[in-house]
Amino acid sequence: MEREEFLSVYRHSLAHIMAKAVIEIYGKENVQYAIGPEIADGCYYDFTLPRPVSEEDIKVIEDKMREIIKRREDWTRKEVSRAEALEIFKDQKFKTELINDLPEDELITVYYTGDDFVDLCRGPHIDNSQALFQAAFQIKNVSGAYWRGDEKRDQLQRIYLFAFPSKDELKAHLTWLKEAQERDHKKIGVALDMFMFRDTAPGMAYWLPRGWTMYSQLMKYSRELQAKHDYNEISAPLINNKKLWLISGHWAHYVNNMFIVPGKTQGTEATDAVSSDETAQFSIEAEDTMAAKPMNCPNAMIEYKRTMHSYKELPIRYSEYDVLHRKEKSGQMNGLFRVQEFRQDDDHTFVTEAQIKDEIKDVISIADEIYNTFGLTYRAEFSTRPEDFMGDIESWNRAEAALKEILDEKYGEGNYEINEGDGAFYGPKIDLQIKDALGREWQCGTVQLDFQLPHNFELTYVDQDGSQKMPIVIHRAIFGSLERFIGIITEHFKGAYPFWLNPFQVAIVPIREEHNEYAKKVETALKEAGIRVEVDYSDINMRDKIKRFKNMKDPYILVLGNEEAAANEVSVNVRGSNKQVRNVPLDKFVEICTKLNKERTLELPSEF
Amino acid sequence: MEREEFLSVYRHSLAHIMAKAVIEIYGKENVQYAIGPEIADGCYYDFTLPRPVSEEDIKVIEDKMREIIKRREDWTRKEVSRAEALEIFKDQKFKTELINDLPEDELITVYYTGDDFVDLCRGPHIDNSQALFQAAFQIKNVSGAYWRGDEKRDQLQRIYLFAFPSKDELKAHLTWLKEAQERDHKKIGVALDMFMFRDTAPGMAYWLPRGWTMYSQLMKYSRELQAKHDYNEISAPLINNKKLWLISGHWAHYVNNMFIVPGKTQGTEATDAVSSDETAQFSIEAEDTMAAKPMNCPNAMIEYKRTMHSYKELPIRYSEYDVLHRKEKSGQMNGLFRVQEFRQDDDHTFVTEAQIKDEIKDVISIADEIYNTFGLTYRAEFSTRPEDFMGDIESWNRAEAALKEILDEKYGEGNYEINEGDGAFYGPKIDLQIKDALGREWQCGTVQLDFQLPHNFELTYVDQDGSQKMPIVIHRAIFGSLERFIGIITEHFKGAYPFWLNPFQVAIVPIREEHNEYAKKVETALKEAGIRVEVDYSDINMRDKIKRFKNMKDPYILVLGNEEAAANEVSVNVRGSNKQVRNVPLDKFVEICTKLNKERTLELPSEF
Repeated sequence: MEREEFLSVYRHSLAHIMAKAVIEIYGKENVQYAIGPEIADGCYYDFTLPRPVSEEDIKVIEDKMREIIKRREDWTRKEVSRAEALEIFKDQKFKTELINDLPEDELITVYYTGDDFVDLCRGPHIDNSQALFQAAFQIKNVSGAYWRGDEKRDQLQRIYLFAFPSKDELKAHLTWLKEAQERDHKKIGVALDMFMFRDTAPGMAYWLPRGWTMYSQLMKYSRELQAKHDYNEISAPLINNKKLWLISGHWAHYVNNMFIVPGKTQGTEATDAVSSDETAQFSIEAEDTMAAKPMNCPNAMIEYKRTMHSYKELPIRYSEYDVLHRKEKSGQMNGLFRVQEFRQDDDHTFVTEAQIKDEIKDVISIADEIYNTFGLTYRAEFSTRPEDFMGDIESWNRAEAALKEILDEKYGEGNYEINEGDGAFYGPKIDLQIKDALGREWQCGTVQLDFQLPHNFELTYVDQDGSQKMPIVIHRAIFGSLERFIGIITEHFKGAYPFWLNPFQVAIVPIREEHNEYAKKVETALKEAGIRVEVDYSDINMRDKIKRFKNMKDPYILVLGNEEAAANEVSVNVRGSNKQVRNVPLDKFVEICTKLNKERTLELPSEF
Repeated sequence: MEREEFLSVYRHSLAHIMAKAVIEIYGKENVQYAIGPEIADGCYYDFTLPRPVSEEDIKVIEDKMREIIKRREDWTRKEVSRAEALEIFKDQKFKTELINDLPEDELITVYYTGDDFVDLCRGPHIDNSQALFQAAFQIKNVSGAYWRGDEKRDQLQRIYLFAFPSKDELKAHLTWLKEAQERDHKKIGVALDMFMFRDTAPGMAYWLPRGWTMYSQLMKYSRELQAKHDYNEISAPLINNKKLWLISGHWAHYVNNMFIVPGKTQGTEATDAVSSDETAQFSIEAEDTMAAKPMNCPNAMIEYKRTMHSYKELPIRYSEYDVLHRKEKSGQMNGLFRVQEFRQDDDHTFVTEAQIKDEIKDVISIADEIYNTFGLTYRAEFSTRPEDFMGDIESWNRAEAALKEILDEKYGEGNYEINEGDGAFYGPKIDLQIKDALGREWQCGTVQLDFQLPHNFELTYVDQDGSQKMPIVIHRAIFGSLERFIGIITEHFKGAYPFWLNPFQVAIVPIREEHNEYAKKVETALKEAGIRVEVDYSDINMRDKIKRFKNMKDPYILVLGNEEAAANEVSVNVRGSNKQVRNVPLDKFVEICTKLNKERTLELPSEF
């Protein structure tokens, strides 16, 4: 059996064991059991139970599971008729609903574990509980869930189980999880005073001075790099009338993810923002209904369309960092990883068909440079024409051939994934998946061709022969959401960001008040070189000053006393090292910092 | 009679003459006349008429007005009872409504011009039309208006009249207007391809690459300057839950000016953005109702409040450039001057009472530097405690004394305006009014003390003696709305912005294709020095290239041919001058441009 298949059977069977254990503990008449699928690191099962599962209950359930496994009970698969199935589960409302929802002609199977526990299940499963003797499992936690994910239906208790084939694997996973928890960007964000979340704006970050400094550095880097590649930045309204979203197609396909500002104006009257009739009802049918933009694309089309364009002007690259808003279910928001408000390093490039290859090559080179700057490796995924594609098949074929050529040249055939038929209906795409320090993959970069939007917005350019042609649009982002990217690198670097990116780059600790004067001199020298410095001029103990700056993970902490002042030197505490480097000439230190900033170096030198 | 009073009587009387003329032309039974107030450069009168007023009608009305004036009719004031008034205006529905709306005890007066025209009016007026013999007037235009400004009521034709006491004054005004029209930022914005407006987002600017470059330079300047003054930039959610606006007071006082995102969630359920019940009605009563922020203040309070603060940390300065949204009536939107979406160079500084004076002094020094950079003079207005003030009167007195001291020191007693009782209820303020090239005044800068918000958000700091105290908040902006400021300076400079601010700073024209190589060299040298350059490498005629760049008002246009390439020189066309400066060494030119950028020089050198 393949390891994945094995894991699946194994975890799925443990879910049944858990359900059986829960029923034996709480009594069958008190338990409604819903579903129990496997997940990435184990499985879960959803129940309604007479009371919330406590810490003590968890231990009892785990013990009961071990006891059941030791019974060496056989697992029996049975095919049953709908009527039989309904009879078997007559006291189980969720199972009854599931059975009733099955298509008429579907074969219904149930699995018995021993004689007394039965579950509605396709299987496959193990044959006898002894197959689970080596099982290493542990209840992870219990959380709330809704039956079928619908907050209007029954509220359930979801018991999560870590489950691995061996103790070593479970242990490795728990170690990994601990590391992941220590790297949790939500905790680090608060500890380093970078950003925070409040219920006054769910899923939208409050950027504090330190965090916003970093955010600004990230944008600065992106802007500088893109300017070198001849991108032109634009900015457009954040809230747009429904008529725009009707043209772009967002109203038809994306309205439930948009923050809607319903209007009040009916009919053909002029849009008048403040109605004198304050009691008027809001309605999304009203003409003056607006919505916060979830994407920049439609406005980029409008800006392109303001004037005629010649083929000589193409490619035209409109980059944008405008704030976007997308509604998320509250349960799905997760720190900076899943937010309702964010910026992208977004771009829309208007090209002729002949320009596709060169342009996308250039995009990939930008991605290379960016990910390399953060020491992140990545892999490419190529998604091709789906069944419901729009446009003509020849354009698709030529475009896909161009993309494939780039990918083959760049990564070598077979060194990227091809997702056949997985492209958007409007064009093929390349996604870039980066890998972080914990081995997790994140889709950040994306390059998508679009034959549809230029069509919806009736975009044209005048070709060499004087004819009107339609440009192709390339959507692309490399960081993706800047918020999410900051979340990723915060966990990747565990808050110890590269020098160029860190909120403050150098902290200064005058040993005593009499050294404040020299500290001021050092501060000025560094600031004049464009280095971000913080100094503690207060009268608190030197060790406390150092401790505070260490906690903030400032890359270099300079300790300044008589000796340093006399020699125009600095003593440097390097982040991540316990030793202090003494006798570093101030000039040399400033020079090193300047170089780190200019080259956006990843490593932090500890030799001077 | 004071000139202002004279103008008022004079213009108001001309409004009656206009109404009389219109009635004589269209026939009394066909005209409903509403109101006819004086305005800054004349007057207007609102009518319902049997047909739209045409260009030809305008001439006819003007002639009829002159004819009426020549009749030397007497003006007679009469006091009448309500019944008499209603009888006089029995066929005039607007007048009837006005009469019915008058308080019971109010004296009703009407004015007769000759025997056949009467208007409901408080007066005063001239005694005889011959007082208008010297009148210089001219119909400005006719536009639509609503009775009582309510778009649900009668639509009226509003006839505007320029009216001055002499021909010379009218002529001067028309010249001034022509100049103002030529400087109209809406036209210049389109001509220079800087920004535009579309009905997909009323009152919100679409920033095109050139305009956005300038916008970014303005923000860069503001940020650099504020960093020098130890401001810390933050950023916070653009859309916030109603609960924030309830605390801040915006929900009670400002809700009609906010873009509301009504929610769907009632009761105590978790906020879940995407409801599964798509038919649910939006309601601003719902718990998950949100609103786009019209001001940054409340979020700055929230960020301050995240942690305890010591008196040692104050002043804390949180600057913000977040996008703000405020609803405006469609008729009041006006290019960049009155928009629904904008950014401010906003700041909230948290201070102790003892720090007020130094802090505001520092703010004024920033304002001095900024306005001076644009060559704009300004004057200060000081607004003091109103009747409905909040807080204790001693704090107000001390704060006002501190502000007065600064103003006296800075401008000298009597050299600033004092608006007694005109401060906000939450604190006294200083407004800064700049004057543009057309002599118009614009309120841009504002510095306001606030005793209220720290109270609403229960802000504290720990004072030297360990006690909890409440900080005072200083709200301040110097540019004010960046959008509006760009509108103002666009008209002030007539699109010929200072070098450091202009979208492109240098344009390069290779004379023929063979000079493209040298042009590339010059382009690279300039770009490396951080200068914004555009080059026309195409094969079109040199003169056409120059013409295009001149139209875009690029400060320097470099013309490059054999001679220049051989000598490593450039020939410079300076904006606003017709002569070309030849034999400028490339190095020297780069140096000059660098200096202009660094010093943000206002004047454009034409000697090299």
